[in-house]
Amino acid sequence: MEVIRNLGILANREAVGARGVVERAIAAAEASGASVRLDGETAAWLERPARAASALDFAAECQLFLVFGGDGSFLRAARALEPVATPLLGINMGSLGFLTLLKLEEMEGALRSVLAGQYRVEERMRLAAALARDGEAGRAQLALNDAVIHMNPSNRLVEFQIAVGGQRLGGYRADGLIVATPTGSTAYSLSAGGPIVHPTMDALVATPICPHALSIRPILVGGEEELLITIGRRSGEATLTLDGLSTLTLRSGDAVRIRRAAERPLRLALPLDFSYYALVGAKLGWGSPTGR
Amino acid sequence: MEVIRNLGILANREAVGARGVVERAIAAAEASGASVRLDGETAAWLERPARAASALDFAAECQLFLVFGGDGSFLRAARALEPVATPLLGINMGSLGFLTLLKLEEMEGALRSVLAGQYRVEERMRLAAALARDGEAGRAQLALNDAVIHMNPSNRLVEFQIAVGGQRLGGYRADGLIVATPTGSTAYSLSAGGPIVHPTMDALVATPICPHALSIRPILVGGEEELLITIGRRSGEATLTLDGLSTLTLRSGDAVRIRRAAERPLRLALPLDFSYYALVGAKLGWGSPTGR
Amino acid sequence: MEVIRNLGILANREAVGARGVVERAIAAAEASGASVRLDGETAAWLERPARAASALDFAAECQLFLVFGGDGSFLRAARALEPVATPLLGINMGSLGFLTLLKLEEMEGALRSVLAGQYRVEERMRLAAALARDGEAGRAQLALNDAVIHMNPSNRLVEFQIAVGGQRLGGYRADGLIVATPTGSTAYSLSAGGPIVHPTMDALVATPICPHALSIRPILVGGEEELLITIGRRSGEATLTLDGLSTLTLRSGDAVRIRRAAERPLRLALPLDFSYYALVGAKLGWGSPTGR
Amino acid sequence: MEVIRNLGILANREAVGARGVVERAIAAAEASGASVRLDGETAAWLERPARAASALDFAAECQLFLVFGGDGSFLRAARALEPVATPLLGINMGSLGFLTLLKLEEMEGALRSVLAGQYRVEERMRLAAALARDGEAGRAQLALNDAVIHMNPSNRLVEFQIAVGGQRLGGYRADGLIVATPTGSTAYSLSAGGPIVHPTMDALVATPICPHALSIRPILVGGEEELLITIGRRSGEATLTLDGLSTLTLRSGDAVRIRRAAERPLRLALPLDFSYYALVGAKLGWGSPTGR
Repeated sequence: MEVIRNLGILANREAVGARGVVERAIAAAEASGASVRLDGETAAWLERPARAASALDFAAECQLFLVFGGDGSFLRAARALEPVATPLLGINMGSLGFLTLLKLEEMEGALRSVLAGQYRVEERMRLAAALARDGEAGRAQLALNDAVIHMNPSNRLVEFQIAVGGQRLGGYRADGLIVATPTGSTAYSLSAGGPIVHPTMDALVATPICPHALSIRPILVGGEEELLITIGRRSGEATLTLDGLSTLTLRSGDAVRIRRAAERPLRLALPLDFSYYALVGAKLGWGSPTGR
Repeated sequence: MEVIRNLGILANREAVGARGVVERAIAAAEASGASVRLDGETAAWLERPARAASALDFAAECQLFLVFGGDGSFLRAARALEPVATPLLGINMGSLGFLTLLKLEEMEGALRSVLAGQYRVEERMRLAAALARDGEAGRAQLALNDAVIHMNPSNRLVEFQIAVGGQRLGGYRADGLIVATPTGSTAYSLSAGGPIVHPTMDALVATPICPHALSIRPILVGGEEELLITIGRRSGEATLTLDGLSTLTLRSGDAVRIRRAAERPLRLALPLDFSYYALVGAKLGWGSPTGR
Repeated sequence: MEVIRNLGILANREAVGARGVVERAIAAAEASGASVRLDGETAAWLERPARAASALDFAAECQLFLVFGGDGSFLRAARALEPVATPLLGINMGSLGFLTLLKLEEMEGALRSVLAGQYRVEERMRLAAALARDGEAGRAQLALNDAVIHMNPSNRLVEFQIAVGGQRLGGYRADGLIVATPTGSTAYSLSAGGPIVHPTMDALVATPICPHALSIRPILVGGEEELLITIGRRSGEATLTLDGLSTLTLRSGDAVRIRRAAERPLRLALPLDFSYYALVGAKLGWGSPTGR
Repeated sequence: MEVIRNLGILANREAVGARGVVERAIAAAEASGASVRLDGETAAWLERPARAASALDFAAECQLFLVFGGDGSFLRAARALEPVATPLLGINMGSLGFLTLLKLEEMEGALRSVLAGQYRVEERMRLAAALARDGEAGRAQLALNDAVIHMNPSNRLVEFQIAVGGQRLGGYRADGLIVATPTGSTAYSLSAGGPIVHPTMDALVATPICPHALSIRPILVGGEEELLITIGRRSGEATLTLDGLSTLTLRSGDAVRIRRAAERPLRLALPLDFSYYALVGAKLGWGSPTGR
């Protein structure tokens, strides 16, 4: 890829030691000849000049954004930069993430290579979820990991119907349903029993959460399919959550329409030696079988 | 057991056809020489005389209570009659339940036998859950099926520590935790991946709900153990629910103490030919293997 | 599709009532103007003339093969007809299968439509598995459902390494590993905890069987990837099974190479109103939530 | 407990560094005033005098046996010493086991305390499994962890019926069935989806292995119950394995009777500060939630 001339930075400012880490990254970037762009809040935190109030204002002039934090911080950054195609590179300030896949220990070396253009960009599917209520379709919101329909705990039952591409799949009573992208397959969906899906696959994963009927299982459909989830008559209020960031209250009779947001993939920057399989193995401890 | 002279009745009055069913049961009871006792609301619904305003007022003079509805109705009846030891017999107006285990089709025949004393009583463990906040212990509440700690969906993370009998077991991040009695093992706990536990065993089942770490698994401990669950510092608000009936808001730092309510078992009336294993097989379809 | 002029038939001759069913199908076919082709054994069983000794000898002149039996019979027929592209239509003589998806009750009506050209053909991926031992690669064998590596029960431990597209994924100790096609995702893989995968997706599913480490989970990779499974030094003898039909003994140090057999898909004939989602719902009982 | 005067030793002689470890333990024992007893093979390996040919010959005069190796070695030692009640203490030469729960690093300190009588003894249930064929009951064999019925991979199908205490529970088609003691609940049963059961509970766990029907789930019954598993007519040959050590071929029509071996518990020696919950947490990594 091209050499980085302008570099944006977003950070979880509350993480322990965050300021020191970001200062180190800025120093490395400037030593590589890149010019660093900061939004107002980040600039104030670092006591440096801001390029603009919001990162979105200068995102188009950057060749890359660095995101410091955990996977939650990365999801927030990805949402803030939804309208632009600038690639994001995540640097984890804790252990290691599926999105913030650069370790702190290797940051400086990795940055030097990346800023010199030694990286590749992988497109990751986002999904779009829109609520339809009383015959009126709401505005679609995007998610990089998942759209989750979940019961409210004071009000246990959610009952819903699922259709795929206009064909009825079945009815559930469950705690909820996760519709995940391949990228999101290793997030909440994995905890609910879903499979790991290679992130470049073109697929949607529908993973039930604690279904009443024991035969309800995760299902994968092609990325071109649209899922329609209708909240049943006997349901109490439920919640629709996108990437764990924004929520919407669902009522009996509501329908949620979920499809691939083909026009808005996330562009993920990856070191040239990045191996997804090695990351899975490291995160889940597959290298060193323990357990029994 | 002894012949039934006085019979209490509680019913889910909103179930389809409930009135006709209860009328049939009353007729059968009176034909068997039993006297039927009704509380105010049930009596008004049936246009019959009430014995007292609340079932609890005459429960001690009854040898048996019939409960009409599904398992949810049975849990409500069991809670209403908590202070008395009168046995309950559940009659399911839908399909078949783990608590309302008499089918409608077989009601009249079964009632004749039962009212003549042809039944046995099985004691089912209840658990007691009490909240401790800021060093002050709250009043314990009882549950026949389960005490559930659950995140609120707008606020995903629950983090908690578990200790058993004063010994640390571990820390979880999860959607929640179910502490179930053996009776409750076939309810919510089963949907979350818990095992089926014979209801006369003296055990508590702790079943995690969608834990982040894949190695967290259901664990059974002896009925004499006390579980202490402490909500972690990083947790948002969570909810404690008992039998899906009553809820309490939990905050970071709260502790929930759960133990067997040895002094308050539920007394379940069972037909003499009742087989728990046959019920499990029928409910879960083990007789006729389908699936693949 | 085109009208059927020549129709091949393969049947599980040991199924109860099989002869009567096949005779009914032949009568329906001949009434529709199709000419039925039989191999030697099937012909002798039906006391009819044979077209050739083996179905393969006349398969190319048929527009369609009917397969009578369960999914196991279908797998055998698919293997027998591997070299030809003639579509197969499965008719289940028991309940309903994922491959033999026509029910007996609806056979005559469905056959009339199909023989008149009212059907579509779906290509289903096969996989090819080849053993490499002592540096020498064996001949690849094909499978429609799955290639399974399994320990021998007298000799419990299998340990293997997996690489995908030349990149190391991890090491397992387990009862075994299932590599399934999307079609096979609802067979053995589902019982081992794998997801349901829409059969037209281009993917391979690797599902571990009872892995020692609890964090080992099913993973999906793109259909263009090659899996290399190497049997570890500490392993005892294991078995490689293809579609449950043919087996091969594996020794420590052996490697099994599994890839999509792009050149040899199965061509499945489907009634025009066939819905995969309806079939999943019916087979797994999703319409009518039971369980608790 | 009492001070150890005579100490037996059994070891996995093939483990790396085993001789040095055992020599260190003997030195520590003799420094504590205990006299060490060795069988013929162990004595020859250590170039020391043997007390008798077999450990069983002097087991009754020992107050304790040390077992060096992994959990597999411990199971072999437990089997060899079945007829005597001498407690066993396991020392793991690798990481940590559920049975060999003393770590090498802490061996000398722990031994000093234990030999001085600072330990407790926990009784662990064994189970007894006996084959009945053609109406004749075979000799029961014991197991500390589990009795496993498993299909042979060349011959996939096992079909069996289960009855508990004479009452039919259901019919399975599956890869197999694990009947585990609480001690064995963290071994094979855990990998197959079974729960963790506190080892002092009086229970048997029946965990299906990859059942065809998705609603078949692990079930716990009281320790006083007898399980009867009958191999179905459609089954091929299967294998019965006890603790992974001894195997028996099962045929269609065979029945396996499994019950608690109340008269032959294993007596496990435990350091006074031993916590089962801490062991579970350490073995399964519950302290440090990773996973996603």
